[in-house]
Amino acid sequence: MKQSLTFMPTMRQVPSDADIISHQLLLRAGFIRQNTSGVYSFLPLGKKVLQKIEKIIREEMEAIDAVEVFMPALQQAELWQETGRWYSYGPELFRLKDRHDREFVLGATHEEVITSLVRDEVKSYKKLPLTMFQIQTKFRDEQRPRFGLLRGREFIMKDAYSFHATEESLDEKYEDMKRAYMNIFTRLGLDFRAVIADGGTIGGTDTHEFMALSDIGEDTIAYSDSSSYAANIEMAEVNISYIKKDEPLKEVEKVATPDQKTIDEVATYLEIETDQLIKTLIFRADDEHVAVLCRGDHEINAIKLKNTLGATEIELAAERDVQSLLACAVGSIGPVKLPVGLHVIADHAVAAVVNGVCGANEDGFHLKNVNPERDFAVDSYEDLRFIREGDVSPDGNGTIKFAKGIEVGHIFKLGTTYSEPMEGTFLDENGKAKPYIMGCYGIGVSRILAAVAEQFNDENGLKWPKNLSPYDVHLISVNVKDDIQKELADELYSVLKSYRYEVLYDDRPERAGVKFADSDLIGLPIRLTVGKKASEGIVEVKFRQTGETTEWQKEEITEKLQGFFSTQ
Amino acid sequence: MKQSLTFMPTMRQVPSDADIISHQLLLRAGFIRQNTSGVYSFLPLGKKVLQKIEKIIREEMEAIDAVEVFMPALQQAELWQETGRWYSYGPELFRLKDRHDREFVLGATHEEVITSLVRDEVKSYKKLPLTMFQIQTKFRDEQRPRFGLLRGREFIMKDAYSFHATEESLDEKYEDMKRAYMNIFTRLGLDFRAVIADGGTIGGTDTHEFMALSDIGEDTIAYSDSSSYAANIEMAEVNISYIKKDEPLKEVEKVATPDQKTIDEVATYLEIETDQLIKTLIFRADDEHVAVLCRGDHEINAIKLKNTLGATEIELAAERDVQSLLACAVGSIGPVKLPVGLHVIADHAVAAVVNGVCGANEDGFHLKNVNPERDFAVDSYEDLRFIREGDVSPDGNGTIKFAKGIEVGHIFKLGTTYSEPMEGTFLDENGKAKPYIMGCYGIGVSRILAAVAEQFNDENGLKWPKNLSPYDVHLISVNVKDDIQKELADELYSVLKSYRYEVLYDDRPERAGVKFADSDLIGLPIRLTVGKKASEGIVEVKFRQTGETTEWQKEEITEKLQGFFSTQ
Repeated sequence: MKQSLTFMPTMRQVPSDADIISHQLLLRAGFIRQNTSGVYSFLPLGKKVLQKIEKIIREEMEAIDAVEVFMPALQQAELWQETGRWYSYGPELFRLKDRHDREFVLGATHEEVITSLVRDEVKSYKKLPLTMFQIQTKFRDEQRPRFGLLRGREFIMKDAYSFHATEESLDEKYEDMKRAYMNIFTRLGLDFRAVIADGGTIGGTDTHEFMALSDIGEDTIAYSDSSSYAANIEMAEVNISYIKKDEPLKEVEKVATPDQKTIDEVATYLEIETDQLIKTLIFRADDEHVAVLCRGDHEINAIKLKNTLGATEIELAAERDVQSLLACAVGSIGPVKLPVGLHVIADHAVAAVVNGVCGANEDGFHLKNVNPERDFAVDSYEDLRFIREGDVSPDGNGTIKFAKGIEVGHIFKLGTTYSEPMEGTFLDENGKAKPYIMGCYGIGVSRILAAVAEQFNDENGLKWPKNLSPYDVHLISVNVKDDIQKELADELYSVLKSYRYEVLYDDRPERAGVKFADSDLIGLPIRLTVGKKASEGIVEVKFRQTGETTEWQKEEITEKLQGFFSTQ
Repeated sequence: MKQSLTFMPTMRQVPSDADIISHQLLLRAGFIRQNTSGVYSFLPLGKKVLQKIEKIIREEMEAIDAVEVFMPALQQAELWQETGRWYSYGPELFRLKDRHDREFVLGATHEEVITSLVRDEVKSYKKLPLTMFQIQTKFRDEQRPRFGLLRGREFIMKDAYSFHATEESLDEKYEDMKRAYMNIFTRLGLDFRAVIADGGTIGGTDTHEFMALSDIGEDTIAYSDSSSYAANIEMAEVNISYIKKDEPLKEVEKVATPDQKTIDEVATYLEIETDQLIKTLIFRADDEHVAVLCRGDHEINAIKLKNTLGATEIELAAERDVQSLLACAVGSIGPVKLPVGLHVIADHAVAAVVNGVCGANEDGFHLKNVNPERDFAVDSYEDLRFIREGDVSPDGNGTIKFAKGIEVGHIFKLGTTYSEPMEGTFLDENGKAKPYIMGCYGIGVSRILAAVAEQFNDENGLKWPKNLSPYDVHLISVNVKDDIQKELADELYSVLKSYRYEVLYDDRPERAGVKFADSDLIGLPIRLTVGKKASEGIVEVKFRQTGETTEWQKEEITEKLQGFFSTQ
């Protein structure tokens, strides 16, 4: 493509409304433009990258027998009323009326539509399983659209849905999808992790998020430095192989700790490590109080606690309730001599504490040399705490590190959440009607464009991985008015195209400095510059990824290019 | 693709809500399903055809240096207010509000959006011309959605927009586009005509519609049986080479024609041909009356008359006005002795009438042997009538025939209709700000799917042209429980895939009759059936287009297929 004929408006200034590097660079390099808050146009460069992303996704979906469909954005309200999401989805759902005052939703997702399609046609277990996907525009009226393509109101998604007669069939497809997603994000060149995620309110047991690692990510991931283990920090299990110190148990001793309120203050005052302390918290779980113990250097994970207790709602007990229960302040609670009948659970780490320190249930005092079982009873030991950096990985391999991630994919076992209310049923082998067992699987296609830009850039601009780059080669004619330069550049343009390279040919009558700056900003993997040495048949070469430069004779260019593109 | 794994719900019954054959067959063969009035899902077969259509369009757009973009469906109301279409577009425009009560339009077309994108970036004639296209979903809230994909409320379009510094540049791109469109519709295999169309209210001079010929089309096309001439019947010029009869002029004679009111009644009564009659109509053009003459066998084309008169509005004069002007009924008007000052124009054919018959401006009487110029004056002769079947083609080549057409494409010179109100300007060579001169170019992508289905079918189902067919080959295993048959079918499936054929493999445990009926309905160009002769390595072959059948040895299949697919 001749650059004079296309639309690649570049900017030298950093746009004031773009906070993160990917958003800044995609705007500056002319890949996207904002139309209105959270709504973007993909300009020619952006569209080309989208197409490359979509091609990879398509190939991997087809490889696991998912068939492509295309469903509408306009969805009749009645379908969303069947599942109740018409009422529960809230203001993120764009709603509108047609000329006859019938109500519609702009598709934020397509579970209802696809379930309604399938329920009319698939009546027998013989026609299951069935997996369909589409690449399509979605609409969500975000409260605060931000970070460019990362959180928009109109965006492109790949969404897939699978229908099964048995749980085993769903499990199998889920594993297929997980593998396909690993392939996709690997081929996209992303530094990513498949992360055990929170099932949220849908209550699915299995769900994984695929996170592109990035400091601007909104989620924290705990991952092993030597295995594939990774989980959303909310969900990460903790390795419970604590080693109990081999030292004799001492006598309990009550010590004054005047005005020492926090864990750190008490540890400093008593000259001990925080991991010697036993922290006791009183939670209200639904209508009951429960004492929850963990080590002083650990933090209770409310999601784990809630799941362990099987509670609908949990919250820390109010100061007033603690006072009336224990006659002390929240900071003075300890597990020794708690009221009879109060349920006590502890994190596994507490069991390994020897001669620990805890609150005395009396303001201004702590107990030293406290030992579990000997000095206080625990109803059960559970995994209740947040994982920490430096912990042993839950799978036993390596040490946990933290990273921030951008969610680029999410796979999910839905079960019968949609098929039941929508009466999407099939007849099983015994002629009995059963609801489809479903899975859903999403990829943020336009979000990936931003995630890749976030991971591949430097101070001069974008640095596209070879298989996502909008073009393979940036061919620059330094002086288009110089006949020798122009002739060689024109010749190379035809030759490279005939070798099936996608070439962006800067034939504009601009200054060399402008062309080079634009070229770095756009970030194609290789740049061929036809300049003063054109008369000798020499072209200057720059590799965007490494910044290396060299010179090639025109005769060797196609061979050298082949070498460059055949390596990773 | 194994048929057992995909979603191709076929129907034996003709759906009661589908009036036309393409709609019936696309539903019955499982290419599409209706979600709600005018809104469809494309199932796997439909999606595959769409992709093939889109690929052809992309290639031809890129060949004329149009670059691909992707603009949003959500468009802020402010843009449509700038051009005034927010107020003029009417109820076809879907409108909605976001959570902050800001008003939006669901894109029915993208002139406003692309003009706003370009005006922010293209400030110099040096960056023009510029042509961009997208393939994208459009929304129009049709009063009466019908004919399946032919008139829907959510549909897929290719829309392109070009920006120019000069009229000449627009003319050039318009010709490029016309050629590209000819290529596209030819490659799509459609029987179509490029038709001179009505500029409508936008007032562009040049505009062509591309019409797929079909009896269910809503427009009538006049075309030459021996040249490429074709025009919308509203727009077709008339060849004015009338031959004047070589006979002596006779004396005018007033004859009684009691109760003979219509042209046919008068001709029969007087025993003459209708082409001997001169018909006179009084029109009101804006605020003035005008007498309009044409031959008795011709019809006045109101669009031509309006354009000729340069009037804003025209209508036939009311009976009452005719009475007060001429003291006779509408059916008795004639051109002889019309009131002084009444403007008189005539269709060219009138000039060639010799010894004609006309109304006498007196009820119950006509004049015989009337001759133009001798007996009445005409201010000017113009092209005022509708073209007729059998007329000489306006380009002098061949005879005019009529056909009905489905509009599948439309190209249009917009001029500055959008750039002026939106202040989309560039600086010309003299540094003077001028509005962009624009063109727009549309193709109904999903409508093409229906138009092709309308042209390619028989009583058993669809008959896809090779380059649009969802798959190349329909491979059928008659009895999947027969090991020999299954083995050969499986082998062929792998071999054909390795030769890059797209194969639909019917591996379902269905009866042979069901499989063959589904196969005819779906309509792939060639069917390979593995049945009883599998043990001899023989496969039965059926060509869908011709219905011919034959047998091939398995060893010769790839060669024979190559032969089949390399011919048109």
